[in-house]
Amino acid sequence: MAEHKFITFLSDFGLTDDFVGTCHGVIKKIAPEVQIIDLTHEITRHHILEGAIVIKNTLPYMPESVILGVVDPGVGGDRKPLAIRTVQDRYLVGPDNGLLSLAADALGGADQAVELACSVYSLPEVCKTFEGRDLFSPAAAHLARGVAIDKLGAPVDVDTLERVTLPEPLMADGGVTATVVYTDRFGNVQLNLTRSELESVGASLGKNVEVIHGDERWEVPFVQSFADVDQENILVYEDSYKQISFAVNQGDAARVFQITPGSLMRFRAVQSRI
Amino acid sequence: MAEHKFITFLSDFGLTDDFVGTCHGVIKKIAPEVQIIDLTHEITRHHILEGAIVIKNTLPYMPESVILGVVDPGVGGDRKPLAIRTVQDRYLVGPDNGLLSLAADALGGADQAVELACSVYSLPEVCKTFEGRDLFSPAAAHLARGVAIDKLGAPVDVDTLERVTLPEPLMADGGVTATVVYTDRFGNVQLNLTRSELESVGASLGKNVEVIHGDERWEVPFVQSFADVDQENILVYEDSYKQISFAVNQGDAARVFQITPGSLMRFRAVQSRI
Amino acid sequence: MAEHKFITFLSDFGLTDDFVGTCHGVIKKIAPEVQIIDLTHEITRHHILEGAIVIKNTLPYMPESVILGVVDPGVGGDRKPLAIRTVQDRYLVGPDNGLLSLAADALGGADQAVELACSVYSLPEVCKTFEGRDLFSPAAAHLARGVAIDKLGAPVDVDTLERVTLPEPLMADGGVTATVVYTDRFGNVQLNLTRSELESVGASLGKNVEVIHGDERWEVPFVQSFADVDQENILVYEDSYKQISFAVNQGDAARVFQITPGSLMRFRAVQSRI
Repeated sequence: MAEHKFITFLSDFGLTDDFVGTCHGVIKKIAPEVQIIDLTHEITRHHILEGAIVIKNTLPYMPESVILGVVDPGVGGDRKPLAIRTVQDRYLVGPDNGLLSLAADALGGADQAVELACSVYSLPEVCKTFEGRDLFSPAAAHLARGVAIDKLGAPVDVDTLERVTLPEPLMADGGVTATVVYTDRFGNVQLNLTRSELESVGASLGKNVEVIHGDERWEVPFVQSFADVDQENILVYEDSYKQISFAVNQGDAARVFQITPGSLMRFRAVQSRI
Repeated sequence: MAEHKFITFLSDFGLTDDFVGTCHGVIKKIAPEVQIIDLTHEITRHHILEGAIVIKNTLPYMPESVILGVVDPGVGGDRKPLAIRTVQDRYLVGPDNGLLSLAADALGGADQAVELACSVYSLPEVCKTFEGRDLFSPAAAHLARGVAIDKLGAPVDVDTLERVTLPEPLMADGGVTATVVYTDRFGNVQLNLTRSELESVGASLGKNVEVIHGDERWEVPFVQSFADVDQENILVYEDSYKQISFAVNQGDAARVFQITPGSLMRFRAVQSRI
Repeated sequence: MAEHKFITFLSDFGLTDDFVGTCHGVIKKIAPEVQIIDLTHEITRHHILEGAIVIKNTLPYMPESVILGVVDPGVGGDRKPLAIRTVQDRYLVGPDNGLLSLAADALGGADQAVELACSVYSLPEVCKTFEGRDLFSPAAAHLARGVAIDKLGAPVDVDTLERVTLPEPLMADGGVTATVVYTDRFGNVQLNLTRSELESVGASLGKNVEVIHGDERWEVPFVQSFADVDQENILVYEDSYKQISFAVNQGDAARVFQITPGSLMRFRAVQSRI
């Protein structure tokens, strides 16, 4: 395999403790020339689906890299520590809990996988409570240097790998019900709903859509950008990762309307123009 | 133009989401050899003046670099996405809302500017809600690699660029009223007031000054450093960016006295020695 | 001396302000080829012991580097700004308040020290309120480039350097009382207690231990990993830095039981099996 100049690193470690810095140290000790891109380390604690979505959404913007993902509520348990090679000859390292599954699919699908084990390619002693440091970081560093994946552990049947599943939007009664998959620091609410799915129920850019969340109902302009509505006004738009989102211009929709990942929102076309 | 080894990056993106990591990815894909210095990504959301001050204050400490600044409440609207070349042949990239104006002045003033457009020097598709990723990061990366600024878009008259204005201190009745421009994580309160301005109303190092904020009034020693007063005591000092600041030694002046950017504080010399 | 490719940087600066970014700038201006590993910048404000523990605990995972540590409640006062060379020919830079003492010991002990002074190896003007930027960062950068330590300032007798002392566990009445030294973002509670010390009072892996904190008393399984107990259950384990820790699996022990650094916890073997 070719060497990779980059490791893309995502976790739920946060930046308060030394966990991220220590993993950087472990990687740099093995592969000082490899550059680490910290995607984010503030994935909601133990929220595998959120991590899986962020890795996948950002793939097109990252240089070719080994992906290191650690969101791992089952650390030290019987979920397998993995390295995966995809059909497109890209590598992913992390726990076998679905975290890597969406990105692996987007990179052609898993072609080969191994269960990471204590070896010359891990730290000499592997602590069951910090495999991010002792197993995953060394594996990513060695893969980035060009070590063959089959040296890192015993083969795992790729058909047995864990997967996360994104909740599908549900079309019914002329509308569509979608699931909130992410809310960002600005309070913007991302749905698992594409523009073409929203348009398939009659919505179109420049017109209002009806949005229902719990007991609340709004008629909201479906527009291209925040600047298309006045400050503090609600908008529906296709966000920068090609998902339909719901926001308040220069406000915080998630906090104000108490919308969290997992919430359902219903969308329906209305006749009135903006 | 010469190549730059560094990009200095400031934003209000925060580190919770992938925004900063994704911009790093975009830059590294175009310019893998360029080093990115993250100045801070925790500028108060949409606070253009705060961002402008931080970029300018830190300029003397940064290696020569392309400056990438994204604090952009009007993203996707009709404010222009810019690249600027200064008289000192330095480059700045960001929205035309004044964010870059103080730094551009400090670098000799804007000599040339272009409005960034969708081109071979942007991402292929530019999303109106994340121009930081799709327009600004690629432009900064290409400039750092030595691409000529006039390739990035159509010329803009530098005299039409937006500016931020710092509130001037007001001398009256033997004292000076200044504006709080920044409060840091330690609660230290920075004023738009220089040492010579404070001295011009009779204050001098080693003596007390009267400080008034709202209904509160203190007599405070004007000293060189925190260690010159006891723990929990108030001090006035020239801070590390050459601005007069107000603080509590090992305490949090901003929180305790509820002082926020934009607040007015009045300073006057008093006769009593410390 | 040899050149170092890395600087390991720890502080209590936080990431909200530009302090960390500005220190990076200062370092890169002097030593553009040196890589900086940010261990963490979220040490509890002015908490010297916490910083000292983190630097020491993470040493084995870091590449050989110059260590730059800034947790400095006495900045600008009469504590000395230091550079230290250890018996193992490693360098540490920071205030003489004990922050570097545990790491210096672990690296063979301090062999030579100098008091950093305003010189060609500092910034031209040293501000008494930000020596991290003006004295410590330049010193670390010059040491990393291979400048001899005795050029940075006047010699200091290494026997006079300040030290932090870790509270020793106290054995009595068939149990051991230990001090909480760190709580992490996940609420895991680290004690200054090793596995062999815990075993010396009769505890053994796979059996319960009695744990007392204030008025609360639990019987807790002493296990290898989180996955050895059910979700939301308490466990005692040897953590990834070889210290005994107390945690709730997928919960937040520190917050729920209000355990903070400095708290005492008592451990005693019990007969019941898990």
